Amino acid sequence: MAIVGQEKMKTALILAVINPALGGVLIRGEKGTAKSTAVRAMVELLPSQETVEGCVYSCDPFSPERWCDDCAAKYGKKTGDKRIIPIKNRRRPLIELPIGATEDRLLGSLNLEKAMTAGESVFEPGLLAQANRGILYVDEVNLLDDFLVDVLLDAAAMGRNFVEREGISVSHPALFTLIGTMNPEEGELRPQLLDRFGLCVEVKGLGDPKLREEVVKERLLFEENPEKYVFERSGKEKELGHRIEEAAERLPKVELTDLALTEAVNISLKLGVDGHRGDLTVIKTAMTLSAWKNKKIDTEMVVEAAELALPHRMRRKPFQDVDFNVKARLAEAEAG
Amino acid sequence: MAIVGQEKMKTALILAVINPALGGVLIRGEKGTAKSTAVRAMVELLPSQETVEGCVYSCDPFSPERWCDDCAAKYGKKTGDKRIIPIKNRRRPLIELPIGATEDRLLGSLNLEKAMTAGESVFEPGLLAQANRGILYVDEVNLLDDFLVDVLLDAAAMGRNFVEREGISVSHPALFTLIGTMNPEEGELRPQLLDRFGLCVEVKGLGDPKLREEVVKERLLFEENPEKYVFERSGKEKELGHRIEEAAERLPKVELTDLALTEAVNISLKLGVDGHRGDLTVIKTAMTLSAWKNKKIDTEMVVEAAELALPHRMRRKPFQDVDFNVKARLAEAEAG
Amino acid sequence: MAIVGQEKMKTALILAVINPALGGVLIRGEKGTAKSTAVRAMVELLPSQETVEGCVYSCDPFSPERWCDDCAAKYGKKTGDKRIIPIKNRRRPLIELPIGATEDRLLGSLNLEKAMTAGESVFEPGLLAQANRGILYVDEVNLLDDFLVDVLLDAAAMGRNFVEREGISVSHPALFTLIGTMNPEEGELRPQLLDRFGLCVEVKGLGDPKLREEVVKERLLFEENPEKYVFERSGKEKELGHRIEEAAERLPKVELTDLALTEAVNISLKLGVDGHRGDLTVIKTAMTLSAWKNKKIDTEMVVEAAELALPHRMRRKPFQDVDFNVKARLAEAEAG
Amino acid sequence: MAIVGQEKMKTALILAVINPALGGVLIRGEKGTAKSTAVRAMVELLPSQETVEGCVYSCDPFSPERWCDDCAAKYGKKTGDKRIIPIKNRRRPLIELPIGATEDRLLGSLNLEKAMTAGESVFEPGLLAQANRGILYVDEVNLLDDFLVDVLLDAAAMGRNFVEREGISVSHPALFTLIGTMNPEEGELRPQLLDRFGLCVEVKGLGDPKLREEVVKERLLFEENPEKYVFERSGKEKELGHRIEEAAERLPKVELTDLALTEAVNISLKLGVDGHRGDLTVIKTAMTLSAWKNKKIDTEMVVEAAELALPHRMRRKPFQDVDFNVKARLAEAEAG
Amino acid sequence: MAIVGQEKMKTALILAVINPALGGVLIRGEKGTAKSTAVRAMVELLPSQETVEGCVYSCDPFSPERWCDDCAAKYGKKTGDKRIIPIKNRRRPLIELPIGATEDRLLGSLNLEKAMTAGESVFEPGLLAQANRGILYVDEVNLLDDFLVDVLLDAAAMGRNFVEREGISVSHPALFTLIGTMNPEEGELRPQLLDRFGLCVEVKGLGDPKLREEVVKERLLFEENPEKYVFERSGKEKELGHRIEEAAERLPKVELTDLALTEAVNISLKLGVDGHRGDLTVIKTAMTLSAWKNKKIDTEMVVEAAELALPHRMRRKPFQDVDFNVKARLAEAEAG
Amino acid sequence: MAIVGQEKMKTALILAVINPALGGVLIRGEKGTAKSTAVRAMVELLPSQETVEGCVYSCDPFSPERWCDDCAAKYGKKTGDKRIIPIKNRRRPLIELPIGATEDRLLGSLNLEKAMTAGESVFEPGLLAQANRGILYVDEVNLLDDFLVDVLLDAAAMGRNFVEREGISVSHPALFTLIGTMNPEEGELRPQLLDRFGLCVEVKGLGDPKLREEVVKERLLFEENPEKYVFERSGKEKELGHRIEEAAERLPKVELTDLALTEAVNISLKLGVDGHRGDLTVIKTAMTLSAWKNKKIDTEMVVEAAELALPHRMRRKPFQDVDFNVKARLAEAEAG
Repeated sequence: MAIVGQEKMKTALILAVINPALGGVLIRGEKGTAKSTAVRAMVELLPSQETVEGCVYSCDPFSPERWCDDCAAKYGKKTGDKRIIPIKNRRRPLIELPIGATEDRLLGSLNLEKAMTAGESVFEPGLLAQANRGILYVDEVNLLDDFLVDVLLDAAAMGRNFVEREGISVSHPALFTLIGTMNPEEGELRPQLLDRFGLCVEVKGLGDPKLREEVVKERLLFEENPEKYVFERSGKEKELGHRIEEAAERLPKVELTDLALTEAVNISLKLGVDGHRGDLTVIKTAMTLSAWKNKKIDTEMVVEAAELALPHRMRRKPFQDVDFNVKARLAEAEAG
Repeated sequence: MAIVGQEKMKTALILAVINPALGGVLIRGEKGTAKSTAVRAMVELLPSQETVEGCVYSCDPFSPERWCDDCAAKYGKKTGDKRIIPIKNRRRPLIELPIGATEDRLLGSLNLEKAMTAGESVFEPGLLAQANRGILYVDEVNLLDDFLVDVLLDAAAMGRNFVEREGISVSHPALFTLIGTMNPEEGELRPQLLDRFGLCVEVKGLGDPKLREEVVKERLLFEENPEKYVFERSGKEKELGHRIEEAAERLPKVELTDLALTEAVNISLKLGVDGHRGDLTVIKTAMTLSAWKNKKIDTEMVVEAAELALPHRMRRKPFQDVDFNVKARLAEAEAG
Repeated sequence: MAIVGQEKMKTALILAVINPALGGVLIRGEKGTAKSTAVRAMVELLPSQETVEGCVYSCDPFSPERWCDDCAAKYGKKTGDKRIIPIKNRRRPLIELPIGATEDRLLGSLNLEKAMTAGESVFEPGLLAQANRGILYVDEVNLLDDFLVDVLLDAAAMGRNFVEREGISVSHPALFTLIGTMNPEEGELRPQLLDRFGLCVEVKGLGDPKLREEVVKERLLFEENPEKYVFERSGKEKELGHRIEEAAERLPKVELTDLALTEAVNISLKLGVDGHRGDLTVIKTAMTLSAWKNKKIDTEMVVEAAELALPHRMRRKPFQDVDFNVKARLAEAEAG
Repeated sequence: MAIVGQEKMKTALILAVINPALGGVLIRGEKGTAKSTAVRAMVELLPSQETVEGCVYSCDPFSPERWCDDCAAKYGKKTGDKRIIPIKNRRRPLIELPIGATEDRLLGSLNLEKAMTAGESVFEPGLLAQANRGILYVDEVNLLDDFLVDVLLDAAAMGRNFVEREGISVSHPALFTLIGTMNPEEGELRPQLLDRFGLCVEVKGLGDPKLREEVVKERLLFEENPEKYVFERSGKEKELGHRIEEAAERLPKVELTDLALTEAVNISLKLGVDGHRGDLTVIKTAMTLSAWKNKKIDTEMVVEAAELALPHRMRRKPFQDVDFNVKARLAEAEAG
Repeated sequence: MAIVGQEKMKTALILAVINPALGGVLIRGEKGTAKSTAVRAMVELLPSQETVEGCVYSCDPFSPERWCDDCAAKYGKKTGDKRIIPIKNRRRPLIELPIGATEDRLLGSLNLEKAMTAGESVFEPGLLAQANRGILYVDEVNLLDDFLVDVLLDAAAMGRNFVEREGISVSHPALFTLIGTMNPEEGELRPQLLDRFGLCVEVKGLGDPKLREEVVKERLLFEENPEKYVFERSGKEKELGHRIEEAAERLPKVELTDLALTEAVNISLKLGVDGHRGDLTVIKTAMTLSAWKNKKIDTEMVVEAAELALPHRMRRKPFQDVDFNVKARLAEAEAG
Repeated sequence: MAIVGQEKMKTALILAVINPALGGVLIRGEKGTAKSTAVRAMVELLPSQETVEGCVYSCDPFSPERWCDDCAAKYGKKTGDKRIIPIKNRRRPLIELPIGATEDRLLGSLNLEKAMTAGESVFEPGLLAQANRGILYVDEVNLLDDFLVDVLLDAAAMGRNFVEREGISVSHPALFTLIGTMNPEEGELRPQLLDRFGLCVEVKGLGDPKLREEVVKERLLFEENPEKYVFERSGKEKELGHRIEEAAERLPKVELTDLALTEAVNISLKLGVDGHRGDLTVIKTAMTLSAWKNKKIDTEMVVEAAELALPHRMRRKPFQDVDFNVKARLAEAEAG
């Protein structure tokens, strides 16, 4: 379904898909602001991808440096290897973490059945394995157990899932775009967890009656006949998916200018953002924007990146919630 | 048993049965206001329905797009398929969620017995499966664990139950009319959960002594001889059931006018309802009212719909409970 | 053992035995006020009853509409059926719910032994099954887990026990007189639970020294030789039991007058009792009183009924406990 | 070991042994006041008793009305039965409830071993079974789980242990003298539990240096050579044990005078003790005193009994602990 | 390693080893005050001991009155018995209770393996069994679960471990010197538990720079080459161990004078120590001091004993911690 | 990856690697200050090490006094022994404790599989075993369960892991450099745990824009091509690793001067550090600094050591966090 309005959220989602290394997106907003709908609509944008057939982690046949142990064992570690790798094309997966999913289901667990029958410990991959090279979506992430959020963010940061539990000591690739939504009325994330989300955007109910009517119409169209709706939109979306794919290809070639770097660090300093993770995310976001817009990096892009990467990292004033007005804060800092 | 007075509650229940996509009804009221009695009385109104014989989810033989995996496998996916589908007629089920029902029982679980004997994981469907195409009733929904409420509302919104737990990863159709009752004296639902109920009505003890006497008489009649009572009423009820059935058939053909849409969005804006879920539910409720009343949609219907769809979505004043006086709030907003 | 003084409690217990549909009695009182003794003394009053021999639920051979599934299967559903039903006479049971009884024991559970041996799930009935057609007594009901109280009251209201748990989905008749005692010093019941008890009486230590001496003497007599004591009293009690039996037979024929109904609703309105459950219980109590006293229903009986049925349903003043002075409140309401 | 001073505690313990129906003794006192020592010293006073040989509940061969089901089955229920009952003489047991004893161990449990081997549910009796016809001692009873205290007091009151748990539904005789000690600094018992202890005494550290020295000397003598100490004291103790035995035989023949009864009720009324349990315990205590002193019951005895039976039942003043100064309170009540 | 300074702690530890019946030592002090080091250094002082070979409780061959059931069964109960008892010499054990040790491990548990294989319940002794006739050391005893502390103190007081748990009902000798350390900054012990420790000393960081330097030097020497360090010190320590052994032999012959007893009781009374446990511990400590110093008991020894035995038993002033200034309190009491 | 700035942290980490007996390093800092990155970068500095091949604890072939029981059994206990010890060279391990690692996984546990198959209890070593002779890293150590922190610090202090749990009683070498990071905004460690960390440093976001830009550049370089980055840096790092190795070899020969010792104790006294652990750590740190700098120990080194070893041991002022300004506090103490 089309997302009406909400430009910042759309940009953040697109950038996070182009560059999973940004560390995910946290979408904050009041109830009923179509956060979940927007995320689900993202799936339809995703270009398909090639995977090693038969691999439970859906390894990328062309990135042997990220292969799982099984692929590495089967197809050799060097790129030049002559073995034939079976390839499968698939839709990029959207894994939704159900709010009651257990730790076992998320991380993977011992396959008890096989353990009993065959007498060997077999690792049963979990949702993090399924999410490899796709999107992992957590609705109401602030209600998730702190420990699970931590595990998610660890895996998102490292692109790997490490499991150290009774009888299991394994790791596997888990490179995914993490998307969380939350309603801050229902409780905040711990600062340490907040900071580890790459980007953070706020969605508000639209104020413009025309846009709101459009939202309702789109939704009704969709509900009336989802298949037809999807089919008709797929043209436009394929185009968007195509643009995302191209941007992802351009990304490794984006060049960072010293000016942009200086600007990014200056902004962080002005806003009182202490950690280096802020600086780094602003720069990486600006570079992804550059790939997306297919333009050289410039000061404006750095500011746009800062608006996505710094709100949840700025020091809060007492009794104040996360402040998304990055530009105002910047102006204030420059003035005062 | 006949429901005396309480017109709003009756309307809400009828609309929710005509259109399960409204997202359920939340009935709020003090103790002893016959909330449960009213809901149980609804069952007797429900027209019977045709189901695929032998299907644990009671799939609709004429809606192959909603079939469960088993039905899809057995009877083909295209409507034009020539295979013979066995059909069974049944009363529409009223599933009551007992307050101590476990998550396993609600969602379904692994059938351990079969798992042990046959060595394969077999999914044992739960109450959500039984509730498919019927009514799921939760008394004292505010006392239910937040997690279970969330699961219920998820399933109600999607019309499917997704189970991701130890050794199980299945989904099945679960399209039901969710009805919850609660006594706000005993604790409120979280705002996020409140918002996800489609309609919300308040029942109060009747103030009119004549009506109260009538309630008592009806109840005594019923208790004296339930079968006779039901038999005698069944005439009237069949008529009502018939009208509901006709309305459900008219629903897909109801036309939304731009005026009604504009009005719905305006009302939401005036009442400070932020999310789009409010707008959407007002419109869908108005359309269902139009089907029920067999009249074109008009402004009045939109206001009536707003009275059912918005009370629990309006911003509350400090120290104030959910405010059901939608019209007064509207007048206030227009004045001020 | 004879109950000295405490007329209201005695009336409430007698009415609840005559008419289990009243919804049970809640006896409130400070420690050491012989609440438990009184309840246990009730058992000796109960006339014996006929049951279907071999039925674990002790079904009534003459009420086929309430038979359990087994009886229904064995002896046909229509009263006119020719099959021979074996009948057994038994004392009406007093089931005491021990304060640590588990949910399994109360509701029934899977018989694991049989499940393992025979490979089939066999339902092992619990205390609710044993209590069918008898009395279920819960001492210190306010200390019981809210969930178990809820289950008890559900079963008491419906006359059936519904079990929905891992691997079990059964229901069976559970029509019993629920009697709970509590010391409000040790914590209150939730309003919703309070409301669902039919009648509510307060016992106080007797103020009259003569009565107190009599209590002690009776108790000493009993402790000295329980069997002799019971034997000697059984004459008087049989007479009382006989009167109860006769009242129960008269009950279905009691006629409700419009005047009484109007009076009952008026009293509820004056006392600010919102729910219909109050009205209904006053009327049913008055009708049971009429059967007990073998007189036509009159205004006085309605007031007497209100004194038993409304104290726990009146709105409480701030910082005030349940107020048993119904008449004073009525006078106040009429005056002011 | 001899108990130096602490006359009231000694009297209470002696009376509770003579008459287990008094409902046990609660000894309250600060740390280090030799409460436990005193209780353990009681054991040595107890005369031996005859039991049915081979009976796990140590039934009394001469009280067939209290026999366990096994004894009843084996030796017939009527006293005149001709079967030979094997008899064994034993020390009366002192069962100490270790603070971490589990519910299973206290009440008894399913014998899993036998259940598995023999395929039948066998009840494995617990400490309550061992305590039958002896003394059950709980140190720091206020730290015990409320539920276990309740179970203990239930069993003590009824002389039977009822077990209703997974797969078990049995009862057996459990007539014991319950003795609990507690340090009120470490938390109070709930009023309901307090009230259910028959007698209640307070021990304080002795103020008289000579007595304290004597306590130390006795203890050192004991520790130096416990066996010798016990042997030497056994003369005196046998005498005391003998007197206790004689008193127990006299007890059933004690006659209650109306004067004493009136006096007992008057005292309760003056002290504001509401429940009848107070009256009853005063009277029973006075009667046991009469048996112990081998004198007719008189007013003085009633007052002495009240001092043991009422302190924990008097209404407490705000912020005040249990008040053992019964006589002062009486005087106050008479004056004011 | 040598303990520098901290004379009171050293005395308390020595006395507790000479006379385990003193009831253990509680060492209180801030973090980093070498409490644990001091305790571990004690082990090296302990003279070796003779045990019954093959006995899991390491029974003393020469104290048949304390034998475990197995030894009693094997070697007869009377000392004059002719059977040959195999004897083994061993170091006296120091058992450290790891902060996470389970109840099972402490008390002993059912040996499941043997229970399954051999079909009999075999008791698997725990740490209390290993500690018999040795030292049981608990670091951070205030962080231990209250229940485990209680069990420890019970066993320490009785010299036996009673286990009453699922399927187990055994007791065995457990006579040990209990040593606990704690940092009061991290929470206090309950008064009842405090009181049950025999002696209580406070350690403070040394104020004298020279002593502190010495501590560091000793520690560095030890860490550099523990074996050499121990070897070199063993001469001095053997001497100390020898003196401890001699004192233990003298202890049973120490004579208590009436003067000392009077003095002990007077001190307790002056300090407001209520319980008799205080009196008794002062006297026993004074007697152990007399054995250690090989001098007749005198007033000075009683005061020294009081300084070790009473600080944790004196009534505390509001908001005040345990007060180790016993002499000042005494002077105050005498003055005021 | 290179660590930019943060000199104190780098020094602390280097010293802790040179001398594991310092007791670990605690790194405190706000979110996003690259604490984890710094620690991970340490691994690349570590020189490789020789281990006994086949030993699960990776024992050092040249330190037989620290061998595990298996190595001791296989290769004899005396150094002069003739048996051939197989030797393997390995990278020094960095074990990261995942925040959800269980106690079992940390300490080791019973190998159930082998226990069942072979009928013997086999100890399955945990992460502490893997960490032997390496680095154990705990991110967000303040969020770890107190009990696990305690166990970690115990093992770190003793160089051994003692496991006393159901059916297991083993110990094995566990000599590792413990490194913990924490963000004090998210909760403090208990004082007792704080004190047991050897060194403690604070990291802050860099204030210098140039340094911050450098951090970002380094990180981008690393992410772009980790293998190349590591390869290129490995030259510099090998040099650093080499210097660390040399320092570790010099360490045992460092001589402590009396002047340094006096200075260390004086500093502790001036700062009000009570425990001896502070003194000892200052001295050991100064000695390690001396080995690292290859200079004789001098006053300056002692002060530098105090800055690393005392901040978390100084008494805190009310409402104040750990104060890293050791020099200022010293000056203050000397002045005032």
